[in-house]
Amino acid sequence: MWSVRMRASKKENNIEKHISGAEGIYDYSQIERVLKQLFKRAFEHSKGKPDKVVITVERINEEIQTVSALPVNTFFTNSPEEAFCLISEKLSSIGISDKALFSAFEVIKKYPMRGATLIDSITGERLERDKTRGIRVSRIHMDKRKRMKLIRQIKNLSTQPQRVIEAITIASKVASYPEVVAELCISDNPDYTIGYIASRDLGYLRITNIKNKGETIGGRAFFVKTPCDIEKLTNYLERKPVLVI
Amino acid sequence: MWSVRMRASKKENNIEKHISGAEGIYDYSQIERVLKQLFKRAFEHSKGKPDKVVITVERINEEIQTVSALPVNTFFTNSPEEAFCLISEKLSSIGISDKALFSAFEVIKKYPMRGATLIDSITGERLERDKTRGIRVSRIHMDKRKRMKLIRQIKNLSTQPQRVIEAITIASKVASYPEVVAELCISDNPDYTIGYIASRDLGYLRITNIKNKGETIGGRAFFVKTPCDIEKLTNYLERKPVLVI
Repeated sequence: MWSVRMRASKKENNIEKHISGAEGIYDYSQIERVLKQLFKRAFEHSKGKPDKVVITVERINEEIQTVSALPVNTFFTNSPEEAFCLISEKLSSIGISDKALFSAFEVIKKYPMRGATLIDSITGERLERDKTRGIRVSRIHMDKRKRMKLIRQIKNLSTQPQRVIEAITIASKVASYPEVVAELCISDNPDYTIGYIASRDLGYLRITNIKNKGETIGGRAFFVKTPCDIEKLTNYLERKPVLVI
Repeated sequence: MWSVRMRASKKENNIEKHISGAEGIYDYSQIERVLKQLFKRAFEHSKGKPDKVVITVERINEEIQTVSALPVNTFFTNSPEEAFCLISEKLSSIGISDKALFSAFEVIKKYPMRGATLIDSITGERLERDKTRGIRVSRIHMDKRKRMKLIRQIKNLSTQPQRVIEAITIASKVASYPEVVAELCISDNPDYTIGYIASRDLGYLRITNIKNKGETIGGRAFFVKTPCDIEKLTNYLERKPVLVI
């Protein structure tokens, strides 16, 4: 099998700004079709047209792990404040301290990265090695049947079902790692105000109005139960091929 | 217009070994078709199947320079020794010292790089900044009509006309830079024993049996007239978009 990944970016003031990305795991015979899809996709993002698109096709030389997709629910809150109270209640119920929650929100708001931050679920300490890059979850794919089923479930709830599927795929892989207690995600797209929290116990909880429309803040935080081998966790999240079913 | 580049590689003993590359300059509407062609091409190289293919699509934000294709001739020599004498005679006729020629052959034989070495045409000194990477000529394209014309001319002389076209495209761009006096190229493909020398004055001279079959040595050397702004030359060769007509 092959991992096929697309990354689109645009140079602004000589700095390459990330526009969008997408990926999947495919059989060799599917790759040509996927190249076309990913290339089209790169030019259809709300953040604008890229001036550079890189597509990487890489053979998978190890066993592909299978994990179950997290069950999906949506909570309708009316403001970021209301959303925060819900998040605080849910995350503390599975052992995440307020300190850790504040630390996660601070990183997401003040230190935007393309990858996720790793937060000690009790002390709130940042654990990822590279604090400018963060952890980029990769080598993931959702099974077609599961994808169709989920799209039917969420298509009336989301203007961008494809993006929700990708988020659920990421969240399901992340939640499958024993030391990861939960994930908090806020999209950096100014038009997209639905965020989520996710964990093995809670499932994938979509939360409306997690931020105000027009805000460009956004990012991911993974709450980690320590002691934890950060190198091993990083390698799993970034390189272990996982099929979500 | 867009630069579309493919690079195929294979991991051997955890080192990414270059297998093949190809590129061109295209209109946006052509890119989807080109993605398919380049992907197919990546899996058809005599050096074997890659386990990684990276395709980069990048908008060209500057004027595309046009240069004429070098006229092509073939010299039939029967041995590397005979080929060397011919090369020595031709290159010295345009002001390249024996010392420079020996230096170029030494780099090609002893210090294989993916890119080309820059050799002072008189002193034989190596001038490229990065002596493990060398200079990688890029952002090039041969005009379709010219390509068809050349293919008709060389198809009876070469088992791999497509590769010859790409080499002529590179050589024509390289020769168009004022301080570049000439180029020497030996393919690192063990089955391909035709090399070439090229320059504004000599044209593109294909030389048979430049090395023995089975030898894996190979590389490119650009002979440079000093003083020369190496940074400017490197930027031209690696980044200036050039259409060969």
